[in-house]
Amino acid sequence: MDAYKKAGVDINAGYKLVDEIKNLSKNSELGAFGGLFPLELGKYKNPVLVSGTDGVGTKLLIAIQAGLNETVGIDLVAMCVNDILAQGAKPLFFLDYLGIGHLDPDNAKKIVAGVVEGVKQAGAKLIGGETAEMPDMYTNGHYDLAGFAVGIADKDKLLNKAALREGDVLLGLGSNGLHSNGFSLVRDILFKQHDYKLADQLPGLDQDLKHELLRPTRIYVKSVLPLVEQGLIGSIAHITGGGLPENVARILPANLAAEFNYGTWPVPPIMNDLQKIGNLSFDDMKHTFNLGLGMVLAVHPENVDQVKAALSEAGEQVYQVGRLVSGFQEVIIRKD
Amino acid sequence: MDAYKKAGVDINAGYKLVDEIKNLSKNSELGAFGGLFPLELGKYKNPVLVSGTDGVGTKLLIAIQAGLNETVGIDLVAMCVNDILAQGAKPLFFLDYLGIGHLDPDNAKKIVAGVVEGVKQAGAKLIGGETAEMPDMYTNGHYDLAGFAVGIADKDKLLNKAALREGDVLLGLGSNGLHSNGFSLVRDILFKQHDYKLADQLPGLDQDLKHELLRPTRIYVKSVLPLVEQGLIGSIAHITGGGLPENVARILPANLAAEFNYGTWPVPPIMNDLQKIGNLSFDDMKHTFNLGLGMVLAVHPENVDQVKAALSEAGEQVYQVGRLVSGFQEVIIRKD
Repeated sequence: MDAYKKAGVDINAGYKLVDEIKNLSKNSELGAFGGLFPLELGKYKNPVLVSGTDGVGTKLLIAIQAGLNETVGIDLVAMCVNDILAQGAKPLFFLDYLGIGHLDPDNAKKIVAGVVEGVKQAGAKLIGGETAEMPDMYTNGHYDLAGFAVGIADKDKLLNKAALREGDVLLGLGSNGLHSNGFSLVRDILFKQHDYKLADQLPGLDQDLKHELLRPTRIYVKSVLPLVEQGLIGSIAHITGGGLPENVARILPANLAAEFNYGTWPVPPIMNDLQKIGNLSFDDMKHTFNLGLGMVLAVHPENVDQVKAALSEAGEQVYQVGRLVSGFQEVIIRKD
Repeated sequence: MDAYKKAGVDINAGYKLVDEIKNLSKNSELGAFGGLFPLELGKYKNPVLVSGTDGVGTKLLIAIQAGLNETVGIDLVAMCVNDILAQGAKPLFFLDYLGIGHLDPDNAKKIVAGVVEGVKQAGAKLIGGETAEMPDMYTNGHYDLAGFAVGIADKDKLLNKAALREGDVLLGLGSNGLHSNGFSLVRDILFKQHDYKLADQLPGLDQDLKHELLRPTRIYVKSVLPLVEQGLIGSIAHITGGGLPENVARILPANLAAEFNYGTWPVPPIMNDLQKIGNLSFDDMKHTFNLGLGMVLAVHPENVDQVKAALSEAGEQVYQVGRLVSGFQEVIIRKD
């Protein structure tokens, strides 16, 4: 083992980390060749697995620079499970991949603790993961995180474009700030075009930049999934890279367009600050940031009151932000 | 989009890549919020999902330096699906995560083509993936690849330590060279301690270093899974980081040890070269490299002939390398 350790790979540090993660996740079976998940299929007639993978993007560079690595795991889980929820499926289990230059078990434990917290918020189970120590690949304390989630739905209950109708109401769920998208632009504006520091506080914000930028991505599973299961939701767009235009377009059938009324929901102050500081056009803004909506639900008008009430009850900020209109898959954001 | 592109993220390059991957994988549904996989459960009484995640490690740095990125995707799939096979499960589907500093769609297409090839060799389906363009995280043309595979088995058919008995025969399946482990040590020996070039050819090798080092990890699914399904295999160890000692120990029950007779299988010439050049002890060797065995199967004596014949027929190099003996989970490699 000596030669390998001298070459920069400490297998024992890896084993120690696996033990720590077993404790954190309360899953003593971690560390086998593969994670096991028994399927309980009683309620599914035609079960379909829905699976997604994602990362945290260069939000990680903020966490690394700030030395605040405790919540990027929540972002990681959120990016994956919100995608699964958007299909109408229930997240079952999660695995994480951590690529890192030098394995410091204490720091890795902080990172994975965020994953464990995210998995808990999603009502899922962490059944495996990989920590890859890769000297020379990741330098300057950098690491990358990738996540994989698997969910399940009955085939007939998968959300489906065909269910959408003209006049369906668009409900937006408040985001928790930037979530995990647009960070290369954020970093460019704040730290390359300008010389802001992570300890600076921007106008309208109640905390310094590092904490504002690192607000964890909201996980919508527990509030939205029950409504999906009751058949009250027509379709869901998870608003990530590409913003409202790209992500809402993906749920539209060929004969409908989505019309948003800008001003019917609050845009997070950090985004207004970034627009001013970076001199961004509204076009740049809407294609890069979530504009304050982490998830958009299309709901038949007769279900809107019930859905709004249930979501508010579950702790979401819910806004009636627009409608589906006749069209050709356009996403229109009306500013008048 | 202009501001985001100037900040180093080209969303349109990403969309172009998704289209390329759709073509390569012949899966036109890629690009939805989550990948779908309908479960056909007819043959499973108590289905258990088996899931694993892994990466390629710093073998990637060799591929990047050599400009040969076509086969690391095979390594990626192999690392994941061989783990799933080791549990006795059938790989169903795969997702990949590619983190990259600057997205060059042509190069990314080469990388993903390897993933598609690996998934084909495993008899699985590529149902999703993520390409994350992360300027400043990955520099010097670096990228990282993580993979995620899900398989299925009937609960009663999962391979199980309890099935192993004293006297069971250990069959080793020939590896295709180094596979995807030990590369930080390989790079240390060849390129830091010494000044070898990727175009050099070492003694006993029939190709230059870059091609030798990049031989893709062998995928054992199609040859081994049918034997698992026939109940002919007691247990399987996938030989990865930690070598025979760590990986074979994981399949042993508390009352058995594994005894290997060194010399009953060929060690790949590259490993002998590395031992000499790096002045490695046998202890370093056995804990770092697979020593020529990519997979070790424990088989009841009465099934050995049938299993050997079937594996040879399927194109594997099969060696009878040892036995299970009474003991305490030790892995002994006898050199006398």
